[in-house]
Formats: sequence, C-alpha cells, structure tokens
Amino acid sequence: MNTLPNEHIVKSYDDEQHRLVAEIVRMGETAVAQLEAALDVVERRDDNAAHRIIANDEAIDTLEHAISHDVMRLALRGPMARDLREILAGLRIPADIERIGDYAANVAKRSIALNAVPPLPQTVGLRALGRLAADQVRDALYAYRDNDGEAAVRVRDADARLDAQYTAFFRELLTYMMEDPRNITPCTHLLFMAKNLERIGDHATNIAENVWFLIHGEQPLPPREKRDDTSTTVTP
Amino acid sequence: MNTLPNEHIVKSYDDEQHRLVAEIVRMGETAVAQLEAALDVVERRDDNAAHRIIANDEAIDTLEHAISHDVMRLALRGPMARDLREILAGLRIPADIERIGDYAANVAKRSIALNAVPPLPQTVGLRALGRLAADQVRDALYAYRDNDGEAAVRVRDADARLDAQYTAFFRELLTYMMEDPRNITPCTHLLFMAKNLERIGDHATNIAENVWFLIHGEQPLPPREKRDDTSTTVTP
Repeated sequence: MNTLPNEHIVKSYDDEQHRLVAEIVRMGETAVAQLEAALDVVERRDDNAAHRIIANDEAIDTLEHAISHDVMRLALRGPMARDLREILAGLRIPADIERIGDYAANVAKRSIALNAVPPLPQTVGLRALGRLAADQVRDALYAYRDNDGEAAVRVRDADARLDAQYTAFFRELLTYMMEDPRNITPCTHLLFMAKNLERIGDHATNIAENVWFLIHGEQPLPPREKRDDTSTTVTP
Repeated sequence: MNTLPNEHIVKSYDDEQHRLVAEIVRMGETAVAQLEAALDVVERRDDNAAHRIIANDEAIDTLEHAISHDVMRLALRGPMARDLREILAGLRIPADIERIGDYAANVAKRSIALNAVPPLPQTVGLRALGRLAADQVRDALYAYRDNDGEAAVRVRDADARLDAQYTAFFRELLTYMMEDPRNITPCTHLLFMAKNLERIGDHATNIAENVWFLIHGEQPLPPREKRDDTSTTVTP
C-alpha cells in the first residue's frame, strides 16, 4: 500500500537528499585524496604506499554501490512527481567518482613498475598534469555541493587546458622514447598514467555536465572545444 | 496525488520493463556493431568510414540518456516495494554499453592516424583481440536478455582469456617499438587501441556482474582471477 506523502515524510526526504549529496561529495574527496596520494608515490617511489592506494580503491567501489542503493531507495519513497534530475545526478556522479578512483589506483599500480627502473625526469610533467586533474575534480564536486551552474561551466571549459597539457606531455614522451629504446617500456607506463589523468579530467567534466543538467535540465551547455588530439597524432 | 496501483498499471509496468530490457539489448548490439565496424576500418584503412563510426557514437550516448530517464520514470510509477535490482541494472548496464561505444569510436579515431603511415603487421593481432571483446559483449547482453546467471559467470570468467591475449599483444608491440624508433608513434596508437579493447572486456564483465546481481542480489560471485598484468610489466 502506498502512503500519501505528509509533511513529515517530505521533510525527511529533503534531509535524506542533503545527506546523500554530502556523502557523494565526501566520496569524491576520497577519490581526489587517492589521486594525490598516487601522484606522491610516483615521486617517492614507494611500493608499499602504492599497494595501500590500490587496496583502498575497493572502499570507493563499495561506497558507489551503497550510495546508488540509497539514492534509489529514497527515489522510490519520495513524492511521485519528484524531479528525476536529482535522482539521476545522484546515480551518475558517484559512478564518475568511482571511475576516478579506479584511474588513481592504476596510476599507483604503474608507479610500482616505474620503481623497478632508474628515475625518469618526466615524472615532474606527470605530477603537474595530475594536480590539474585533481583541481578539476575538486571544483566539479564543489559545483555539485553548491548547486552552482556557472562553476560547472567553468570546470567544463577548463578541461581544454588539461587536454592541451596532456597532448604536450604525450609528445614529449614519444620524443624521449625515440631517443633511446630503453626508455620505451617505462615511458609506456607514463603514457598510460597520463592518459588516466586526462580521463579523470573527462570524468570531472561529466560531473560538471550533470550539475548543469541538475539545474537547467536538457538545456544544452555551449559547445565544447576539445583539445586532446593525441588520438590523431602521427608524429611527435 | 498518488494513484493506488491497480492490475492495469502493474501489467503495463511489466510490459514496459520488458520493452526497456529489449531496448537496452538493442543499444548493446549497436555498440557491438560499432566495435566490429571499427575493427574493419583498421583493416580497410578507410578514413571516411572511421569518421562515420565516430559520428554514430553520439546516437549511443543519446540513447543512454533516454533509457536512464525511461527506467527512472518507470521506477517511480511502479509498486513501492518493487525490487531495486531491476532498476539499478537498467541504469548501470546502459552506462557500460555507452562506454563500450566510446571505446569503439576511439579505435576508429586512432585508425585514421594509422592510415597516415604504412600498414603494420600487428593490426591482425588487434583484430583478434577485438573479436574476442565483441563476443564477450554479445554474450553478456544475451545473459541479460535471458536472465541467465550461469551464462553471466561464464562471461566473467572468459575475461581472463582476453586479458592474457591483451598482455601478449602488449609485449609484442613493445618489442616491435624497440626494434625501430619509427614504429614508436604508430605502435603507441595500437597500444591504446588494444587497451580500449581490454577495457571493453571489463565493461562486458560489469554487465555480466550486474546480471548476476539482478538474479542473486548481493550474494558474491566466486573471486575472479585477474590476468592483465601489463600495469606492472617492466620488460617486454
């Protein structure tokens, strides 16, 4: 039997919705912390810390499942005409955060392979790329927390900077690989690590687009300039 | 105002649920078709066909958004005690399919870069890897369509074969890159294309795990053996 909504239920629905947004933002901050820890272990060449980051990723995956259940449970007991957008954003944003956590863990995992060879000067460039990606994720989370569509558009637009930096770094790595075949295997790891960071930026953009959707519905954002052209690069 | 469920509404709920599952399977088949077309253009070195595949990807993205809306709309008008699992699977599986479509489009995009250099013998290995990935996706979709938990476990287990083949191909590419620096840039594209195919396999596994979850709830699958060890490879 359905229960007709009364003021008490509606109020606790809103409370629960606020609690969930806060929990999603906390989940996102955990993923950013994982990313920053992964960037650190690349520098410190610390296998043990890398293994800890890899192990921590499961907690984010578990959180994503728990949150999607809670969002759906809340959706099903809410008023029937409740806006779908809040619910869909509450399901999609944690899925993006979960992927960000995966990419951070993969950066940590590949750092272990790099620790088996002499230090590479390019880890500095990787770190700069990673900091930019972490900033993007953090700004996207705050746009979500503050329900701020303008901030979301700024995050989406700033992704072009990350893409441009990724493209430059990608070319630098290719040049370095051509100079000495011994650089090829470690630089391949750096290529994938850089790609992970670029993908983290894409997920920050997804979060920002969901914040926009939450506020403005299907009204489109201005067309986005895409700067990652490494998929069509034929010479470094 | 809520309307109490009556037999007519419950029946049309089930009809709509079946329609949505069929639509999700169709969406998945479109992604598989994109993947197979992408593998073809790598062989045929056809830039125009590659551009068509890239353009088609938007249709899959649009479909994912439309389906997630329909699933949520259905969820909100269904009986309150309705199992969450059906709804969550109906949201998560299209998200995985959408990612598979993205990876297929990226394979097509990178094939354009490869067309600018002489043909590489390694495209044969890429194609074999891609066929395996397409089979995995197709089998996962049929497990979903048929509500078949055993088939889902088989898909999940078969991913180890794809991972092993990816690892072997990855090493082959590294060796080829070391033989001649001119191979480095095109092989980098092949590395990322192969990684895309390996990731498609992971998404097929996600679909299979959601089919299991749909049938058995939180009851865990047997632990999975993970064979992709390229993240920790230091020598080819």
